[in-house]
Amino acid sequence: MTRLLYLLDLIGVAVFAASGALAAMSSNLDLLGVLVIASVTAVGGGTIRDVLLNRHPVFWIQDATPLTVIIAAALITVAWSRLLPIPAHSLLIADALGLALFAMSGARIACEAGCSSLVTIFMGTLTGVGGGAIRDVLTAKVPMILRQDIYASAAAAGIGAYLILRRLGLSERASFYVGIVGIAVLRLSAVYGGWQLPSFRYE
Amino acid sequence: MTRLLYLLDLIGVAVFAASGALAAMSSNLDLLGVLVIASVTAVGGGTIRDVLLNRHPVFWIQDATPLTVIIAAALITVAWSRLLPIPAHSLLIADALGLALFAMSGARIACEAGCSSLVTIFMGTLTGVGGGAIRDVLTAKVPMILRQDIYASAAAAGIGAYLILRRLGLSERASFYVGIVGIAVLRLSAVYGGWQLPSFRYE
Amino acid sequence: MTRLLYLLDLIGVAVFAASGALAAMSSNLDLLGVLVIASVTAVGGGTIRDVLLNRHPVFWIQDATPLTVIIAAALITVAWSRLLPIPAHSLLIADALGLALFAMSGARIACEAGCSSLVTIFMGTLTGVGGGAIRDVLTAKVPMILRQDIYASAAAAGIGAYLILRRLGLSERASFYVGIVGIAVLRLSAVYGGWQLPSFRYE
Repeated sequence: MTRLLYLLDLIGVAVFAASGALAAMSSNLDLLGVLVIASVTAVGGGTIRDVLLNRHPVFWIQDATPLTVIIAAALITVAWSRLLPIPAHSLLIADALGLALFAMSGARIACEAGCSSLVTIFMGTLTGVGGGAIRDVLTAKVPMILRQDIYASAAAAGIGAYLILRRLGLSERASFYVGIVGIAVLRLSAVYGGWQLPSFRYE
Repeated sequence: MTRLLYLLDLIGVAVFAASGALAAMSSNLDLLGVLVIASVTAVGGGTIRDVLLNRHPVFWIQDATPLTVIIAAALITVAWSRLLPIPAHSLLIADALGLALFAMSGARIACEAGCSSLVTIFMGTLTGVGGGAIRDVLTAKVPMILRQDIYASAAAAGIGAYLILRRLGLSERASFYVGIVGIAVLRLSAVYGGWQLPSFRYE
Repeated sequence: MTRLLYLLDLIGVAVFAASGALAAMSSNLDLLGVLVIASVTAVGGGTIRDVLLNRHPVFWIQDATPLTVIIAAALITVAWSRLLPIPAHSLLIADALGLALFAMSGARIACEAGCSSLVTIFMGTLTGVGGGAIRDVLTAKVPMILRQDIYASAAAAGIGAYLILRRLGLSERASFYVGIVGIAVLRLSAVYGGWQLPSFRYE
């Protein structure tokens, strides 16, 4: 499963890099600026996870593969935007996939570190939303987490499902996949279907 | 005193969670979004303190009590807002108490780690203002630290008083309380009395 | 070279502190608020570098010199602004020098830690832009990295030149200076000459 997790992390890194590149291009940054924002977005959540859990070296520091994947994903995104129209919602879709992959990766690593369920859900959610939050702050956009549709809730719900399914005896791997697919489907349904949970307002 | 510090930390966590919940509700977030913002606000300052001082595990990772307290405080805040009017300045008051408790907790732990007075004042101030700064950035509000009334100054002044009183021979515990009460009173006087230090402007 | 690096770090700290003080004064903060923003700006990039590379104690924690230098630099900036007109572009120039010094310091320490070239460039760029990004977020300004002229690109290019020159056999020290001067010149040319790389836009 370690090898699989590593691959899923790289996919998460690639889609977050694409989302970062899209956000940076919409802010009119130059090529290296686009690469920097793409990199920070892609490594953000996993770096928060590794630093908080004291896992050194941080995942992209001794292994140059993540940064190589990020640069490739960002360059492909930039090249695509020159040649073909960018599909609607691209940033939201890339962000949703990265959210799902990183939330579950953060949750699984927290589990292995012996964290309680509550801490696991919070650590996974933080890992999932971290990179996008940094991207939104650096590109001066409204944080994705403030959007009215389901966002952090999708991550927390998917991690909760994963923990429950494991406790019910489903295999680690199957529960893990259910978590990822669950978060992505919840989030994409929210984007496309306009789903939202009841919100709270006070003046 | 360790047990007392732990309790004061939990109170700080609870009031910062309430302030985070209020900020998230005023941004119309759904229930899980409110919990995420409340949690990040409440653990923010202490996490910065623990990571910078290399204290692992970070205070909320092995011990699920802080997150449990955060969820309870956030849910009570949400329930209250459904049933009763939210008192004016609630966010500012909760933030002031959290500022006082975390600034002194950060200062005390820096002291124990053998930091100089200057580093202790800075680390305490950072611990006090950290959670609120993250809350304000994530909910796209003007950072509290930019408000014209006394804010970071209250934290730094209270920590300075604590260090001076200790050196003058007052007991650790008494100096610590003077610091907490001093910061809270300074900050609340600023909120209610419109106190402010002279500010600087250049064009 | 260790001693020299230490000195250059202190100069970087001083110019970033001045840039933080200027940003805080333009937001009308009081004196202690100015000192807090100056400190966070000045220690930001190096703290990210030390935490990510697991270098403890973080550079300003056991050694009070950096904070002392910061306070002196911030007070001089404040006093100057009372007595003499602040030269145009002061914040941009101080930021450019800090960017150059910290980008190269981050790159060199990443090199020593055995990082690959790609990781070294990213870590250096992050160290260079980190403090300014925190300053801009806390003072609610548009992040410098979003400016249309060359910014992160200058840092990455200078670090790239340093790595190439070293590989070509130039001495460590000479390559290091070329990197610093290169970044500063590139960035200042961009500020004064309106240089920019082609940017990308998608709707």
